[in-house]
Parts: sequence; C-alpha cells; structure tokens
Amino acid sequence: MSTVEFQVTGMSCGHCEAAIRSELSEVGVEVVEVSAETGRLVVNGPVDDAAVIAAVDEAGYQAVHA
Amino acid sequence: MSTVEFQVTGMSCGHCEAAIRSELSEVGVEVVEVSAETGRLVVNGPVDDAAVIAAVDEAGYQAVHA
Repeated sequence: MSTVEFQVTGMSCGHCEAAIRSELSEVGVEVVEVSAETGRLVVNGPVDDAAVIAAVDEAGYQAVHA
Repeated sequence: MSTVEFQVTGMSCGHCEAAIRSELSEVGVEVVEVSAETGRLVVNGPVDDAAVIAAVDEAGYQAVHA
C-alpha cells in the first residue's frame, strides 16, 4: 500500500489531530499518522491531493504535499 | 451574579476550550469565559470549586482557583 505525506500547519494538540482525522474520514481518506508535534500527516494512497488539502482546510488547518 | 475565576494549564487551542466548556456544561456549570491564550476560566457562581476542578480534569487539564 502506498502512502502520501503532507505537512500541516496550525495543529497544537490531540483535539486538532482528531479534527483532521474526522474530516478525512468523511471523505474516505484513511490516516496512517497525524502529529501535532511534527505537523506530519500520512494517509493511505492513492489520494486526490486537493481533496486531502480541502478536508484539512475544512478542519481549520493548512496542508501542503510534503 | 457572582463569578468565580480559575487558572487552567494545558489548553492550547479552541478545541481545548470547547472540551472544558463541554465537561462543565455536563455538571451544570456555566462558563463566562475560557481562554487557551491566557488560561483564564471564569464561571458563574456560586460553584463547588472541587466540582469545577474535577470537570476540568476530566477534560484533560489542570485548574486551580485563581
């Protein structure tokens, strides 16, 4: 299984991680790792990068493809 | 209406504030102000300080009477 990595800015705690997991789950994207400490977001691919970035935005954070 | 002030450590964002509001709501305590930035928690009194501190603890944070 391939994974795709993003860098997310704005997360500060576990609630933030959970909010991102929740929004990604709603669009069918499976989170492998999300860390407020490092800003690292890893999801199972293949994914539509724009859809991931939009879901993260919906949660209130900014993601870019790492 | 009297208010009672606490100082809370550990909040980092709006999700944290919401978690504290939610736990306090469950024990019937009305939040006037809660700020992750300052750690300030103000509730409508009179309240049982220990109940407020316990609810904040349940949310994952530490409160002391200010």
